[in-house]
Amino acid sequence: IECILVTAEENKIRLTANNMELAIETILEGEIKETGVVALEAKLFLDSIRLLYESDVTISTDDNFLTTIQCEGDEYKISGKSGDDFPELPAVEKNDPLKISCLTFKDIVRQTIFSVSENESNKMMAGELLEVKNNVLSMISLDGHRISIRKTPLKEENSEENEEADAEAANEHRDVSVVVPGKNLDEVSRIIPGEINKDIKLFFTDKHIIFEFENTTVVSRIIEGEYYRVDQMLSNDYETKLKINKKKFLDSVDKATVIVKEGDKKPIIISIEDQSMNIKINSPVASFHGDLEVEKEGQDIMIGFNPKFIKDVLRVVDDETITVYMVNPKAPCTIKNEDESYIYLVLPVNFKTVD
Amino acid sequence: IECILVTAEENKIRLTANNMELAIETILEGEIKETGVVALEAKLFLDSIRLLYESDVTISTDDNFLTTIQCEGDEYKISGKSGDDFPELPAVEKNDPLKISCLTFKDIVRQTIFSVSENESNKMMAGELLEVKNNVLSMISLDGHRISIRKTPLKEENSEENEEADAEAANEHRDVSVVVPGKNLDEVSRIIPGEINKDIKLFFTDKHIIFEFENTTVVSRIIEGEYYRVDQMLSNDYETKLKINKKKFLDSVDKATVIVKEGDKKPIIISIEDQSMNIKINSPVASFHGDLEVEKEGQDIMIGFNPKFIKDVLRVVDDETITVYMVNPKAPCTIKNEDESYIYLVLPVNFKTVD
Repeated sequence: IECILVTAEENKIRLTANNMELAIETILEGEIKETGVVALEAKLFLDSIRLLYESDVTISTDDNFLTTIQCEGDEYKISGKSGDDFPELPAVEKNDPLKISCLTFKDIVRQTIFSVSENESNKMMAGELLEVKNNVLSMISLDGHRISIRKTPLKEENSEENEEADAEAANEHRDVSVVVPGKNLDEVSRIIPGEINKDIKLFFTDKHIIFEFENTTVVSRIIEGEYYRVDQMLSNDYETKLKINKKKFLDSVDKATVIVKEGDKKPIIISIEDQSMNIKINSPVASFHGDLEVEKEGQDIMIGFNPKFIKDVLRVVDDETITVYMVNPKAPCTIKNEDESYIYLVLPVNFKTVD
Repeated sequence: IECILVTAEENKIRLTANNMELAIETILEGEIKETGVVALEAKLFLDSIRLLYESDVTISTDDNFLTTIQCEGDEYKISGKSGDDFPELPAVEKNDPLKISCLTFKDIVRQTIFSVSENESNKMMAGELLEVKNNVLSMISLDGHRISIRKTPLKEENSEENEEADAEAANEHRDVSVVVPGKNLDEVSRIIPGEINKDIKLFFTDKHIIFEFENTTVVSRIIEGEYYRVDQMLSNDYETKLKINKKKFLDSVDKATVIVKEGDKKPIIISIEDQSMNIKINSPVASFHGDLEVEKEGQDIMIGFNPKFIKDVLRVVDDETITVYMVNPKAPCTIKNEDESYIYLVLPVNFKTVD
């Protein structure tokens, strides 16, 4: 059913795609000569549209659902199907929307989605927790090796307009805790416009989360069950605290990993001694070591990591200087900022001490 | 032997790659502490260099050819091999260079290389003819379905400087006719800078063609034997002559081919009737037809083509309006300009007449 349902209604055209995991609907304005519905093979429909001149397009179907797409001197005819067997958008009751800037939402998804587990055998890990508590939105993912947390306060965008009225009430959103399939969240975030001044609305039902932005509505199923108690996995204890220039740290890990393949599972070994960090990696045919200045409090340490996990975090942190907390070579290391709007935990890996 | 030979000589560093088909050497300036040579695995060497800071790099080897690459706080160690077994650039005698702008040469290779045969069982078709006759450089390729020809006059770049001196002599280059393996020509053209004001020098020996530009020398073997008599395949006869807006023609063929896969071998069918061209393609699930205005002399015609062959030509012709000559649905169609600095022949394909 990789089809797009094209529905011509009074004064508008509705495009619907639904793979039972995720349903997307978008509304277009258009001149409707006759209402009707047809299901078109998605890729073929897209291909037929995408090279047309920027001009008016006419779409019509005959009794056999053969669909004609006309634009200037060009005409495609593509086979369609009856829309009858095609699932519409699930009927969901929408109330009490959570409003947030499109860009902010897109960002926090990007900054957490990478640690959703790719192994789908664990249903809960294949999802990402979206939580609202005390008017703060948290997005949390974990895959058994690492945890990513992003928090953002919810603000009433229009607070200036209705400052006096029900500002207090409008500011508050009821508490929410849903687990959204990572794949769906990824798909949605791709089509959300990256604009700070446009809002996305989220609605929650027992079985679904609904995303509304511009003329588009997306309905995703949610994963039923209780998510991990991530709070219990966090700790403020540390033996070593480092401040590091993020770009130089990322550059250094990138340089280390060019000589290994991702499948090699070679750890990077990080040694902290005084105010200097040494990053080392070994492969059968080459080795790398790089020195970086750091600002250290506490103990020296030598600890190994899967370099991909470190890179994933460093790529999505925007701060120029990051703070890293470590306990010992077997305990997770934490990268977080002062107000904990982001917290990343990465488990270390064993490494044979090499010279 | 996917190695790069690094040779530290007095005051210069020589990098050599040689896969027996093609040898490339480039010279770098550097401070040499000790002369010597080492062979380094090419990809590993490149990877070790490419992320380093833009700063001075120190390369040193020990007795076991273990090579250390240092830059700022970073250090790679990679295993090397003795350079002894590694082929140097073949010794070739260079005289009487053909000089041409790098950009011009790069362009005419790009504009002809696509019709070199990918089937290497036919040695000659896997090469491209480079010919100098009457001080005109021609590049010609063919694959049994099409022929591409580009010609460019050779000019003495420095003619103004030594106008009075041996201008006449300097202007003339002896006639040349060599067949260069298409793959090699493609590789060379990728590394030639796309600059109009820089020259590339070509040298010819019995077995090799040598390309010299900037600090780089490339030696390619040539294919021995006689190339096809392409002159005999060309004709000025036609029944239909068309002038078409190139961009619109290409757009239309692109639109036609989005609904078919390249493996489908579906022809585009071009019908010329009066001053209009109709382009049509059919697949099991879709069809396209597009109308274009043309300026026609001669007969109406209906003719089928492999759309890829038409696109390949239209993509490399820079003219806004192109002229197409056709004879009948079984004879090659010719796209050429007035002074014949380019000539493209494309054989038509059979097509079942569909409505």
